[in-house]
Amino acid sequence: MTKRAYNFCAGPAALPEAVLQQAQKELLDWQSKGVSIMEMSHRSDEFVGVANQAEQDLRDLLSIPEHYKVLFMQGGASQQFAQIPLNFLPESSSADYIDTGIWSRKSIDEARRYGNINVAASAKKYDYFSIPGQNEWQLNKQAAYVHYTTNETIGGLQFDWIPESGDVPLVADMSSDILSRPVDVSRFGMIYAGAQKNIGPSGLVVAIVREDLLGKARASCPTMLDYKVAADNGSMYNTPPTFSWYLSGLVFKWLKEQGGVEGMAKLNFEKQRLLYEYIDKSDFYTNPISKSARSWMNIPFRLADARLEQAFLAGAQERALLNLQGHRSVGGMRASIYNAVPMAAVEALIDYMRAFEKEKA
Amino acid sequence: MTKRAYNFCAGPAALPEAVLQQAQKELLDWQSKGVSIMEMSHRSDEFVGVANQAEQDLRDLLSIPEHYKVLFMQGGASQQFAQIPLNFLPESSSADYIDTGIWSRKSIDEARRYGNINVAASAKKYDYFSIPGQNEWQLNKQAAYVHYTTNETIGGLQFDWIPESGDVPLVADMSSDILSRPVDVSRFGMIYAGAQKNIGPSGLVVAIVREDLLGKARASCPTMLDYKVAADNGSMYNTPPTFSWYLSGLVFKWLKEQGGVEGMAKLNFEKQRLLYEYIDKSDFYTNPISKSARSWMNIPFRLADARLEQAFLAGAQERALLNLQGHRSVGGMRASIYNAVPMAAVEALIDYMRAFEKEKA
Repeated sequence: MTKRAYNFCAGPAALPEAVLQQAQKELLDWQSKGVSIMEMSHRSDEFVGVANQAEQDLRDLLSIPEHYKVLFMQGGASQQFAQIPLNFLPESSSADYIDTGIWSRKSIDEARRYGNINVAASAKKYDYFSIPGQNEWQLNKQAAYVHYTTNETIGGLQFDWIPESGDVPLVADMSSDILSRPVDVSRFGMIYAGAQKNIGPSGLVVAIVREDLLGKARASCPTMLDYKVAADNGSMYNTPPTFSWYLSGLVFKWLKEQGGVEGMAKLNFEKQRLLYEYIDKSDFYTNPISKSARSWMNIPFRLADARLEQAFLAGAQERALLNLQGHRSVGGMRASIYNAVPMAAVEALIDYMRAFEKEKA
Repeated sequence: MTKRAYNFCAGPAALPEAVLQQAQKELLDWQSKGVSIMEMSHRSDEFVGVANQAEQDLRDLLSIPEHYKVLFMQGGASQQFAQIPLNFLPESSSADYIDTGIWSRKSIDEARRYGNINVAASAKKYDYFSIPGQNEWQLNKQAAYVHYTTNETIGGLQFDWIPESGDVPLVADMSSDILSRPVDVSRFGMIYAGAQKNIGPSGLVVAIVREDLLGKARASCPTMLDYKVAADNGSMYNTPPTFSWYLSGLVFKWLKEQGGVEGMAKLNFEKQRLLYEYIDKSDFYTNPISKSARSWMNIPFRLADARLEQAFLAGAQERALLNLQGHRSVGGMRASIYNAVPMAAVEALIDYMRAFEKEKA
């Protein structure tokens, strides 16, 4: 086998090697049953056991209170952008959204198709290099909910605080930072996350929904998009993505072995500290995000001389440092350093950045 | 490793062993890239190559004409039950549906939430043991489309003919018999199928849509549920279920090696012939479906003495003949013998049925 590369992909992202090894080992024969976990009925005792254990491990990891439902669904965060208003926004009502970058704007554009959306704050006035403080937000106390994106995967902005929304349910897209550090779930009405960064393979989305918000979906909401239907059926109204659910369960188990989200927070703090410190000390690389809003997960950076970008990427590839190109919409570089990206990867990246700077500066 | 069992699960169903072996081999290191196919950006050249090859192989297998789009989506057939009216049924119009069992009734119930649905024919008058001939159908020439289910997974009924719908687009749920034998795609407006029977793992749904039907979705249709958006973005409006897509591609390649759908048709004909012949000759086992409507894929059967069912299942389990219990809504037994279930599995099942009958009759 080729040596495993260091993979800085923004998503679908690196998975823990130990998880892939276990999946590989039992791919044709899960627990001596003679079949793959992929070949089992989702209603079999075996798969239901796997599914329930995954949910319980996620509940343990995030200390999810009893009165929240955990849902395993399909369609990614982009489908949630429609599901949220279809479930939570009565036609005559409005919702508050916070604009911090490309992903929050996508959620706003889709929600506008279903009702009045008030952009209560926007990072635009800071050129998306900083997050407006809550004193700058224009929240509506009658809003059906407040929606924000905890981490902007493309821009590299992350909230290091939880907004105060009073009695209005707070809804958060945590696709790219869930499980990267502790979070007080009880502050939220709903948290959701596409799996393909910190949870598992793509094709799965996890939602954590406060029970009292369920059961108010619009008449036009497709049955499959109604959170209450998913909750009442244990996320098995129809056949769920069983392999993704199973693999996510292996990731949750791995996270517990690594010290849970507290362990991840320590590791992730060190990973981002090393990389930002190196970038800030260099005149060759830059990151434009204000320090209080910098993402621990996605670190975009630019070379002082943009003409060197292709050479930088080619040299990185040679060292098996993969997927460092920025998002196609913004260019530059980006290192995504999710939970499964080890400290050694960050160190190898910095070594390479240093060598490249020395050669080209 | 335990010996691989014979798996008669209705879905998620058996996958070809050669496919699982290849996936296992390259699970941590796809084509010496040092990462799993699951860990690659869906927009990477590598994954786009995998995705396009899968589409091309499916086009080859089913001789899909140029003017049809092939879409890889999420949410299963149950989500399609809403997507179809949201995309094809103008609010003032009506659609014709054919009721042949549990799955077609589910599609009818969901469609009724979006407009006028005319049940143009129902197998109810035959207690769902037979499919009404087209001379008994009350089709509406003004219908937006005609929908039917080619194979009822639970009831064990299958069309061995394609309805004539004139200028009205014919929409078919082929979840449980796609790729099991040749089909003339040009007769259809749309064909769709959940992957977890004859295509790949659950969490993926494949749709084949005639281009001229695209672009008429309702204003309230979620962006992710609009077929035109999926088509315009190569099924990558957002992150698709990459691993399921990849694995489906391996299945398509395997099917080509087996002689394509023509090869499968020969094999599947022999498999069902053997099993129905044995059941029909026996006084101990029965299948109630009229011969012209019998499914090649899902063969429900009952024991003359229902009290022996548990003993039958326990004995089957001991011989590694798995998942022969009927659907929880109907009971009895069911052998699902999709493409990936080999002739040897059917022979082993009949051997066991014979031995059990001899012991108990």
